[in-house]
Amino acid sequence: MTPTLETRLHDAVSKVRQYWRGTRFLDGLEPGIEGTQALLDVARIYRAYRLEIGRMRLLQGRAVAGLFFDPSLRTHTSMEVAAGRLGAHFVHLVGGQDTWKMEFAEGTVMDGMAAEHVKEAAPVLSSYADVLAVRAFPKHGGRDETVIRAFARYAGAPLINLESALAHPCQGLADMLTLADLGGGSYLGKKVCLSWAPHPKPLPQAVPLSVVRAAILGGADLHVACPEGFDLDDEEMERAQSFCHDTGAKMTVTRDQMAATQGAIAVYGKGWGARDYDRHADLAAAHRGWTIGDTQMEGANAFLHCLPVRRNVIVSDSVIDGPKSRVIPQAANREPVQAAVLLSWML
Amino acid sequence: MTPTLETRLHDAVSKVRQYWRGTRFLDGLEPGIEGTQALLDVARIYRAYRLEIGRMRLLQGRAVAGLFFDPSLRTHTSMEVAAGRLGAHFVHLVGGQDTWKMEFAEGTVMDGMAAEHVKEAAPVLSSYADVLAVRAFPKHGGRDETVIRAFARYAGAPLINLESALAHPCQGLADMLTLADLGGGSYLGKKVCLSWAPHPKPLPQAVPLSVVRAAILGGADLHVACPEGFDLDDEEMERAQSFCHDTGAKMTVTRDQMAATQGAIAVYGKGWGARDYDRHADLAAAHRGWTIGDTQMEGANAFLHCLPVRRNVIVSDSVIDGPKSRVIPQAANREPVQAAVLLSWML
Amino acid sequence: MTPTLETRLHDAVSKVRQYWRGTRFLDGLEPGIEGTQALLDVARIYRAYRLEIGRMRLLQGRAVAGLFFDPSLRTHTSMEVAAGRLGAHFVHLVGGQDTWKMEFAEGTVMDGMAAEHVKEAAPVLSSYADVLAVRAFPKHGGRDETVIRAFARYAGAPLINLESALAHPCQGLADMLTLADLGGGSYLGKKVCLSWAPHPKPLPQAVPLSVVRAAILGGADLHVACPEGFDLDDEEMERAQSFCHDTGAKMTVTRDQMAATQGAIAVYGKGWGARDYDRHADLAAAHRGWTIGDTQMEGANAFLHCLPVRRNVIVSDSVIDGPKSRVIPQAANREPVQAAVLLSWML
Repeated sequence: MTPTLETRLHDAVSKVRQYWRGTRFLDGLEPGIEGTQALLDVARIYRAYRLEIGRMRLLQGRAVAGLFFDPSLRTHTSMEVAAGRLGAHFVHLVGGQDTWKMEFAEGTVMDGMAAEHVKEAAPVLSSYADVLAVRAFPKHGGRDETVIRAFARYAGAPLINLESALAHPCQGLADMLTLADLGGGSYLGKKVCLSWAPHPKPLPQAVPLSVVRAAILGGADLHVACPEGFDLDDEEMERAQSFCHDTGAKMTVTRDQMAATQGAIAVYGKGWGARDYDRHADLAAAHRGWTIGDTQMEGANAFLHCLPVRRNVIVSDSVIDGPKSRVIPQAANREPVQAAVLLSWML
Repeated sequence: MTPTLETRLHDAVSKVRQYWRGTRFLDGLEPGIEGTQALLDVARIYRAYRLEIGRMRLLQGRAVAGLFFDPSLRTHTSMEVAAGRLGAHFVHLVGGQDTWKMEFAEGTVMDGMAAEHVKEAAPVLSSYADVLAVRAFPKHGGRDETVIRAFARYAGAPLINLESALAHPCQGLADMLTLADLGGGSYLGKKVCLSWAPHPKPLPQAVPLSVVRAAILGGADLHVACPEGFDLDDEEMERAQSFCHDTGAKMTVTRDQMAATQGAIAVYGKGWGARDYDRHADLAAAHRGWTIGDTQMEGANAFLHCLPVRRNVIVSDSVIDGPKSRVIPQAANREPVQAAVLLSWML
Repeated sequence: MTPTLETRLHDAVSKVRQYWRGTRFLDGLEPGIEGTQALLDVARIYRAYRLEIGRMRLLQGRAVAGLFFDPSLRTHTSMEVAAGRLGAHFVHLVGGQDTWKMEFAEGTVMDGMAAEHVKEAAPVLSSYADVLAVRAFPKHGGRDETVIRAFARYAGAPLINLESALAHPCQGLADMLTLADLGGGSYLGKKVCLSWAPHPKPLPQAVPLSVVRAAILGGADLHVACPEGFDLDDEEMERAQSFCHDTGAKMTVTRDQMAATQGAIAVYGKGWGARDYDRHADLAAAHRGWTIGDTQMEGANAFLHCLPVRRNVIVSDSVIDGPKSRVIPQAANREPVQAAVLLSWML
């Protein structure tokens, strides 16, 4: 007898819980190697039967609060739609605008602009919602993770990081699904290229570091290409490296963009800030040739980017509009992986 | 045997689809004469049994994304409520505020303020939502339909125009329902007056042009009154005129406001920009007498306006607070017609 | 036979309606003494079985519109979650930002900034939503209740005040639930202290006045402590006083903060504006010793505050982080009481 869709989904969610009972999804490494693969299996079922699953209203009576200190198109929409289709209620909060300005420091005398401390905000939101999701990243480079760490400390409810200074774990999980699609079900041992590309602003490293983690969790042969002065965060790279042994991944950092792209199942283009991020604009301008164009894509199979992407700065129109671009299905993969995380906590 | 409410609704939606299989509702003419009447029949069933239909959750598991580049009270609320009552999840997005600033031009080097191109935004949102709805109109007159046209080109999902420079098709469809109510079920051959009225700003012609289309689609004897220098867009008026033959409508443009109102089942007041819209404020000030007051309403049956309306500028308190005012039921008709469009795409 | 949860809930809601058939919840006194107790019983059932009740989707097909002219974290989230869990659709509107700038004066010639009059906005929103909820309070002191009164006058739908100049009735109702919890089911005859505390801004009296009403409705022995120049609104205090006879409550106003706290089941700290609110900052600065600290809490059982709270200004870290603090369960009580109001109108 064929199991019903609902049984299949319940079984897949149970398998996630076998490996992962945690209530924090902050850098994306929390579910571990097996837990992550189990999450991807839930996501694949959701992706194949989104409407049918939506009709089951499995998360009926549940609530998710999403607090955004920064703009969002994909993250907001995909998170809200994932929750909504599953029958949960999603509350969209714009931090410091709809809500009060928030204080994060301990022991402060709050006689300034901030009217509310995270020590109240986090547990109060946790009392209304079954899951919290928070987005807060520094505007111009740096490692400041104050907001997400404070919520992680004070929220009683399960918490999803919707992008901080150093991690964008939902993007990373979606990228694993996309890379697996490109690799024919798995990218174990397959070459993946993460290439720096020029961008006018010193963007945080949340996405490239999540790409690194995603590639390594899935056992890729990862080649990270960037110009001198643009190396990714040492500490985070070392942590990621430490997973290589268990997953069979390899990581190579190179200054040779062309070599990194050759034979890759995917070239993942992304701008990020110079180490000396106050001088970013000048330093980046010196490497305009790193824009991903037809030449860079010649020996590679697919182009990926987390979006939003600046056309003809990060990537040429010809590449992103061409047959190798997979950015739309990549973005579409956000909804199923986030549905998988929500289901694993609330089903 | 009496058919159940659900059967009646399904039958009414099937009839819409018999005439209209398109996935764009941009100027409101798309469903054609029969398709529009079929949509109005769906709206009438929804209006009569809103709560009972809501309890069926017919669009359970579906998602609608509404992207607003401009403020909205009625359009946002009525669209979200229509979707929500039917069981679909509605995501409200404020363009360029919650989301990234968006680029619409082709081939640009995106090194300025805009971080995201509509060529990504439209298909990405289409991957999350079953229906998109977009509002973007020029602040001060003009024919600029860049935003809605770009979404129409790049969105894979069905698309509703929630007001652009030249069309507000949901308003138009609601107005057809209101005019039919006023005409005792139909306004075929009945006199309808669209009258210009003073307004400090050179408002776009989206609403008056949609009123013209609505009146003509339903076969009205339409009289458009406006002062010299305020004629509606030639091209759009010609397109609307071309429908007259098929619907039995007639259209008269006049400078004589009083004559236009005599015997009308409805006087639809609306401000719109002067042709020379840089000189609008001065030109409009010269026609303060066009404010719809008791004199203008003497020979007419009802007052209509799309709202929001500037009291004692567009219309006198005495008229809008008086027995001939139908602006509240007119606004209420937004929800059922929009529910009809959503049902015709997603049921 | 044990009644089912659904039967228990229906019975509890019927009891509310036995005492209260009104459609306005503006100062919180509307349901009367028995109606309020009946609402609290509904809230207790909701609180105990939130998820199970959520799965029933009792308000399926209903819609609630929440219009916020001021920021909100708790009020917005708890209201939206209460509606959402019950199956109603909640539309979140930001007044004057998402929507048009609104006019409230009668008879105005609207040729300025305001594009929409409340005389249209209120009935139009009432036509889309089954319940309206509105938040609007003056930024700096005063008794201005223009917005909520205008909505009360023109809204056809039931209306909840989500905080105005003089009342925050949902907070008051939640506080009754919290005080009853602290009193072991009831606080009849128990001592409750409302203490003024320093705050840099001349905050409106909505919360302290609602605390007064809440304490009196439940029959407390209420002690209100504040420095000279900070007495609460005379008219509202007299109205509250007039309920004392029927509920068995007593009210004492005192300048002696320490005496007021002795033996209280709860010290409710709150800043509010000086009577001479233009000189508030200076007047408040002279009473820094009123910050609720360990000394003040020595003889009392619990600390309450409506939140957001300025730490080390209103209350010391040691108190709010200590074992007597009940601010989180107090805030959590917002959701069940608001669910009770929604159920009593829409079930």
